[in-house]
Amino acid sequence: MIVLITGGAGFLGQRLARRLLELGTLAGPDRRPERIRRIVLADTAAATIEDPRVVSLTGDVADPDFVRSIVEPGTTSVFHLAAVVSGQAEADFDLGLRVNIDATRLLLEACRRLAAPPRFVFTSSVAVFGGPLPTPVPETWTLNPQNSYGTQKAIGELLVNDYSRKGFIDGRAVRLPTITVRPGRPNKAASSFASGIIREPLAGEIAHCPVPPETPIWVSSPRSAIEHLLQAHDAPASAFGTSRSLNTPGLSVTAGEMVATLERVAGRDVASRVRWEIDEAVASIVTRWPARLETVRAEAMGMKPEPDFESIVRAYIAGE
Amino acid sequence: MIVLITGGAGFLGQRLARRLLELGTLAGPDRRPERIRRIVLADTAAATIEDPRVVSLTGDVADPDFVRSIVEPGTTSVFHLAAVVSGQAEADFDLGLRVNIDATRLLLEACRRLAAPPRFVFTSSVAVFGGPLPTPVPETWTLNPQNSYGTQKAIGELLVNDYSRKGFIDGRAVRLPTITVRPGRPNKAASSFASGIIREPLAGEIAHCPVPPETPIWVSSPRSAIEHLLQAHDAPASAFGTSRSLNTPGLSVTAGEMVATLERVAGRDVASRVRWEIDEAVASIVTRWPARLETVRAEAMGMKPEPDFESIVRAYIAGE
Repeated sequence: MIVLITGGAGFLGQRLARRLLELGTLAGPDRRPERIRRIVLADTAAATIEDPRVVSLTGDVADPDFVRSIVEPGTTSVFHLAAVVSGQAEADFDLGLRVNIDATRLLLEACRRLAAPPRFVFTSSVAVFGGPLPTPVPETWTLNPQNSYGTQKAIGELLVNDYSRKGFIDGRAVRLPTITVRPGRPNKAASSFASGIIREPLAGEIAHCPVPPETPIWVSSPRSAIEHLLQAHDAPASAFGTSRSLNTPGLSVTAGEMVATLERVAGRDVASRVRWEIDEAVASIVTRWPARLETVRAEAMGMKPEPDFESIVRAYIAGE
Repeated sequence: MIVLITGGAGFLGQRLARRLLELGTLAGPDRRPERIRRIVLADTAAATIEDPRVVSLTGDVADPDFVRSIVEPGTTSVFHLAAVVSGQAEADFDLGLRVNIDATRLLLEACRRLAAPPRFVFTSSVAVFGGPLPTPVPETWTLNPQNSYGTQKAIGELLVNDYSRKGFIDGRAVRLPTITVRPGRPNKAASSFASGIIREPLAGEIAHCPVPPETPIWVSSPRSAIEHLLQAHDAPASAFGTSRSLNTPGLSVTAGEMVATLERVAGRDVASRVRWEIDEAVASIVTRWPARLETVRAEAMGMKPEPDFESIVRAYIAGE
């Protein structure tokens, strides 16, 4: 197997690569586990993983020459994680189009030119949903994104579906929940606070929560998200039915419950470092996202959420 | 008002232009009727309408220079009808992407550069729906196209919605039913037979129906389709709610009922000119389309379907 991960130097990309190295195999075209002999990590920055099976390639995923260079002959699996995140896609419309649509098309075209169609796992988002939403959101609910990131992810999903139907790739578009707790620093995602309100207080820093405490958020741990990407990769095409787009399991928690959990796990002093300061730009994006999704097909593929948010906080503390 | 119609030399484009000339006005930015002083018909072929208010420009809507030239300063309304139809988009994947996605993006970008955001009416299709469908299809049903045309139209819808939300255009994406009876010759749409099985027998010719008689089709007369495009144009943005995509009223008739209606209106000899010869390529596309849609918002805007299919056949005979 030759595995390509775009956004491969990012938090999720490197974590996925490490998990693949640990596992050593992925389902091949006939669904039997096959040995991973090479992992290509493509990103704007170099990845930091040292392993003879890993190569790190730096460039712009919206540059046609770079995209052709990262899709090596014999590539069997692609995890397309590279994206401009929600807050940034909203602030820079053209950049969002370029990376979230144009780069995805370049990558799909490069895959189409491979001798055999690769498995292609595309990370989509719950931001494809919007407008008045029932709880939970059914699997057949319309795509009605209320921000540019969600629009661009929905377009990516549609392309992945059509390229799969045509037999150019064997695609899966996975609608990941908001991932928390991410290590490191805040990013430009509107959901960045969902990690910040746990991570910063634990590090002794003040965190600002830009949404009201009663705001529900659909979340997943990094560990679950990685497992779900791998399960989506390995599942047979037939498990997807007529749509390659998939809601994956998560937990529905409010910002207030997240901070209450932090207090329970780490104490009142830590939790008191969260300041509630509503940011209308962020809140107007986040409060339009769905709070809970139906995940019937994903569950049938064996995907499970974390048991509760406390497990997510404890796993983060244990891992850092 | 300066009105641009892409696909302006086509059947629907020219019919829309004639109707606009007849009306003389369209709703302006403040919703009051304003005088139409210029209609630009852009297409690969020249339009045949002679009127001092009409200019016909020929070129390729996927050519950036041509698109910039057709979106004149002061353009107030755009009807984007140019498209590669379903059968052709399925046969030539790259052509479909180029015209149905790339050209739409070029046009949206040219509109974004206007001093004031124009009304932008995009013709979408019921082909954005697919997979197992309830009857009728609710307005909130997911976009799950099962052919490339539907995929590309769904992508166009998403772009029209996001460009509208950003204030770059004031868009409406209208999911027209299959239009019948079209005059002229068959085209490469999978639904072309829906006109052919009425038109050809009336002209004394044999028509081949490529789908089984029990296949339901969601249809509209050309007259209704034009009125609905104009009503979608004139409706206030608030009437659309959180989505600019709109199901418009149609009639659900089976191919068999269509031919039975022809027999009732024009006699057994005429109807006997229809031959049932299943074409799997066409049938596999058409039988995946929805047979009936919920049209709650469109009805609230005053849109109505024809009373019955017989009215459509009689109007065609009267008009030709």
